Amino acid sequence: MAELMKGMKRTGRLTDFSQDNIGEQVTVMGWVRKRRDLGGVIFIDLKDISGILQIVFKKELNEELFEKAETLRNEYVIAVKGLIIKRDEETINPNLTTGYIEVVASELRILSEAKTPPIDMEENSKTNELMRLKYRYLDLRRQTMQDILLLRHRIYKITRNFFDENGFYEIETPMLTKSTPEGARDYLVPSRVNQGTFYALPQSPQIFKQLLMLSGFDRYMQVVRCFRDEDLRANRQPEFTQIDLEMSFVDVDDVIEVNERYLKKLFKDTKNIDIALPIKRMTYKEAMERFGSDKPDTRFGIEIVDLSSAVKDCGFQVFTGAIKNGGSVRAINAKGCGKIFSRRDIDSLGDYTKLFGSKGMAWIQVEQDNLKSAITKFLSEEEIKTILDLMDAAPGDLICFIADADEKVFNILGTLRLEIARRTNLLDGNEEMNLLWVTEFPLLEYDEEQKRFSAKHHPFTSPMDEDLSLIDTDPGKVRAKAYDIVLNGEELGGGSIRIYDQEVQRKMFSLLGFTDEDAQERFGFLIDALKYGTPPHGGLAYGLDRLVMSLAGTDNIRDVIAFPKIQNASCPLSSAPSIVDKKQLDDLGIELKKD
Amino acid sequence: MAELMKGMKRTGRLTDFSQDNIGEQVTVMGWVRKRRDLGGVIFIDLKDISGILQIVFKKELNEELFEKAETLRNEYVIAVKGLIIKRDEETINPNLTTGYIEVVASELRILSEAKTPPIDMEENSKTNELMRLKYRYLDLRRQTMQDILLLRHRIYKITRNFFDENGFYEIETPMLTKSTPEGARDYLVPSRVNQGTFYALPQSPQIFKQLLMLSGFDRYMQVVRCFRDEDLRANRQPEFTQIDLEMSFVDVDDVIEVNERYLKKLFKDTKNIDIALPIKRMTYKEAMERFGSDKPDTRFGIEIVDLSSAVKDCGFQVFTGAIKNGGSVRAINAKGCGKIFSRRDIDSLGDYTKLFGSKGMAWIQVEQDNLKSAITKFLSEEEIKTILDLMDAAPGDLICFIADADEKVFNILGTLRLEIARRTNLLDGNEEMNLLWVTEFPLLEYDEEQKRFSAKHHPFTSPMDEDLSLIDTDPGKVRAKAYDIVLNGEELGGGSIRIYDQEVQRKMFSLLGFTDEDAQERFGFLIDALKYGTPPHGGLAYGLDRLVMSLAGTDNIRDVIAFPKIQNASCPLSSAPSIVDKKQLDDLGIELKKD
Repeated sequence: MAELMKGMKRTGRLTDFSQDNIGEQVTVMGWVRKRRDLGGVIFIDLKDISGILQIVFKKELNEELFEKAETLRNEYVIAVKGLIIKRDEETINPNLTTGYIEVVASELRILSEAKTPPIDMEENSKTNELMRLKYRYLDLRRQTMQDILLLRHRIYKITRNFFDENGFYEIETPMLTKSTPEGARDYLVPSRVNQGTFYALPQSPQIFKQLLMLSGFDRYMQVVRCFRDEDLRANRQPEFTQIDLEMSFVDVDDVIEVNERYLKKLFKDTKNIDIALPIKRMTYKEAMERFGSDKPDTRFGIEIVDLSSAVKDCGFQVFTGAIKNGGSVRAINAKGCGKIFSRRDIDSLGDYTKLFGSKGMAWIQVEQDNLKSAITKFLSEEEIKTILDLMDAAPGDLICFIADADEKVFNILGTLRLEIARRTNLLDGNEEMNLLWVTEFPLLEYDEEQKRFSAKHHPFTSPMDEDLSLIDTDPGKVRAKAYDIVLNGEELGGGSIRIYDQEVQRKMFSLLGFTDEDAQERFGFLIDALKYGTPPHGGLAYGLDRLVMSLAGTDNIRDVIAFPKIQNASCPLSSAPSIVDKKQLDDLGIELKKD
Repeated sequence: MAELMKGMKRTGRLTDFSQDNIGEQVTVMGWVRKRRDLGGVIFIDLKDISGILQIVFKKELNEELFEKAETLRNEYVIAVKGLIIKRDEETINPNLTTGYIEVVASELRILSEAKTPPIDMEENSKTNELMRLKYRYLDLRRQTMQDILLLRHRIYKITRNFFDENGFYEIETPMLTKSTPEGARDYLVPSRVNQGTFYALPQSPQIFKQLLMLSGFDRYMQVVRCFRDEDLRANRQPEFTQIDLEMSFVDVDDVIEVNERYLKKLFKDTKNIDIALPIKRMTYKEAMERFGSDKPDTRFGIEIVDLSSAVKDCGFQVFTGAIKNGGSVRAINAKGCGKIFSRRDIDSLGDYTKLFGSKGMAWIQVEQDNLKSAITKFLSEEEIKTILDLMDAAPGDLICFIADADEKVFNILGTLRLEIARRTNLLDGNEEMNLLWVTEFPLLEYDEEQKRFSAKHHPFTSPMDEDLSLIDTDPGKVRAKAYDIVLNGEELGGGSIRIYDQEVQRKMFSLLGFTDEDAQERFGFLIDALKYGTPPHGGLAYGLDRLVMSLAGTDNIRDVIAFPKIQNASCPLSSAPSIVDKKQLDDLGIELKKD
């Protein structure tokens, strides 16, 4: 039976004490993390959220107490009264704040015993992740996990304080709501009171935050849970957290300005990193042309070069064919890789590009006085020289070519560029934090299959003022007031200025192929709302989990969530989702489908 | 077509300006709230989240501009450039921060036109609530609504900062989880990936916050959405917000102490009200005996008095019978009501008690030299005198008696006491904030129908140390380490110290009639977790919506939620819940039940 804490009061957390407290009587509580018996002396590493404090039991001082201390096992929860003394010189641990002191115990209560943990509790636990998630409450006792969740707590705080100080109001939006038009699948919640109808859990509070602007709230922010019923890829969770913002009477620069100050503050206060402002901006077009990605990792070069005009008349059918079909020939220079990569390595790179739809990768290996390549025979000396010049080629380099439709070329070379960086460990030890705004996204994407446009961002995204007239004449060319913030090749967040003009909104819906009825059915209450005086407004949403990952330096999303789900959207700890009583389903007027 | 904001930048919010800014050129934006035409001058009340600023258009200055201003209607969104000048003395409005100034317009852009609002937009809107909720985005433009949501924002901020400063960490718990054992109905979410299984939306994060304590997080807080699929009573919402707390290594006094400092801070910083600490405490027993309620409104007397010994031998069968059956006879003195209430009023009070299960209310009307009553004839003079003494009766008073089982007597007189206060407007103009801790709740309630105990709070609530031995001998007598915080008769929050001893937890489950299997099935992962070293812990949860209501001085819960649901759990704005595509149900492997 556990002993009662009755009458005992903790003096403080374990690392509240230091050399300054030597000679003081204290009461401390925590988990036994380690016990060492050295003859007549027992040392305990006592652990709480703050860290470790050393407790000493000495047989010569109190034999009964000593014997009780001998029964202590790892993870027992104990309360100890004792005297803080200075450690012997040779046992000082300068790495701990409490490393100079220890508590000589005069009283011990075993508040809770513990079975042997079924998982390895060391910082670098050897237990597989599934087991650790099943015993998450033990896994979370590791300092590394606690540090991440404490960092997450600080991120909430810095975020909320910053936006409060900048005139944003935190307002809660509904969780039981109607489908939002984000494309992904909704989680549905059957209604019992109105049988046959369903709520949807929000994919984002998009419509509600726009309504709040229409309501005059001027600046809104919320740290908010969102839901997407997707087939989980790695680093996706069915429920995730957004830092969601919206502002009235603003244009692109206003949203960017306040968010830059936020990011500067966040990086400074969490990692002591100074972000230089303004953060670099790059248009979508430039990002695609140089890096083959709308979230380019700008920590390294290997940029894409357009060789189309250099090879447009060459003898290599693959190149000229692509150009004739309206595509292009582009290449990257994998600096030094000509020396490092074997022929087999290069072939494997070519195979890799095929995963992303390439029909083949041409290449030139540049040697001191020689070029190795299967394509040089189709090129004139002049053409080769131009290519080498344009690619800034030097001996040891490897030039990789893709010829295809532009979009494909960008995508393939953009991916290849990252793969080469990975294979050459180019970023090992790189601690840069390269923030980048990508701007001027296309408003629309043309869906070849459905033969119609779809919204690149969402249907409420505003065209750029300069491109307004193109809506009627060449909608595919219209650029949007949309922007993403990218960190080291990962999208931290994105947003846009919204349409506040009913006429433009109507055109947008018509471009997207919505009839008035469709639009009314799907977004009716927002469309109605636009009629009663709408301020220009726009916003942004950060993926909080991703942001914490970046700042915590982990690439596992489950490390930054206290109780995460695994790939099949289940929770190994609670076993959710689970079977429910038939009566519960009856109440809801639903039943399982028989096949 | 709306005009573009392009190039225009807001100088500030409307009430950022005052006499200090006279002579400055500014750009301001907002909604037209009122337009007055006085011959060659048009005055506009421009409104934003901060308040009102007066704009002036003068025909003599710019005729074209003046004509444009003549087209302005209420709720148009406009941008104005102009000069801040001092108002004419006679037009000064000292009630507004901007009441001494106005902006003489030199440029006007109509950013958005507006149809005539379908609801009355005055502060005391005459439109019925359902319509206002349908057009919530217009309803929220009223200053009173904005003030409440801005207060709510400040409450979040004060709350989070306070608990952060006191060592609490905000940690998010899952929304897609397993049923919690709170008794009420869960909202279910069908799983697509694991067809036939369901998530439940949390009724509270109870189990997860306890697990966080077991994980060593020491102090946790979260402002968290919770869900209950109940038949909605007034002032209930299917989704509601809790301020949820949990602390390790604490007993009752520790939880109370930190929360008292929180409440003091909250009331001071929002309402400038000084709460005297410590807040009064009252045991559950005393609260029931004196006020007939576990959330007594202590702003007024009319306390319950036990008359059982005074009437135990009297000639009134109803009284003696109740006492013989183990019940009691108790009364309240409605001071002065003997004079105010007619015979019909008194009968109506009697009828009112029947709604709460009374078999009848006896009463004595005390007049100067006379008693009016139907029961005095059954009482001796001695008995009458004792009653009048005990009731502190004076001419004009009305004494109301209930004789029944104790629980019923408390409930009926407790309710009657509130009703009398309402009918006599006793609390009109009363601005007291009477905070009260109610403590020492019973651990268990006996369910006569099911012939077994159920948990008064929840199955993890710890017995009081003093009563531990009663668990085996007289469980109905065991008091719990449970506490509620009550404000003016409303429960703001409640909590308890939890069981941290596996043995006690096992006994508790067995008292509640759970087999080991039941317990394992329902709370398995928490029971398992208790085996690996559990710190003493406890916590509290506030109903945030209720807290905001108290501080905002409204008794309508929909006033404190941006997008609330109505009684049938639907949202008049979004029309959620709604019918979904059959395809969506197919994906989930469910179908609507045919009857």
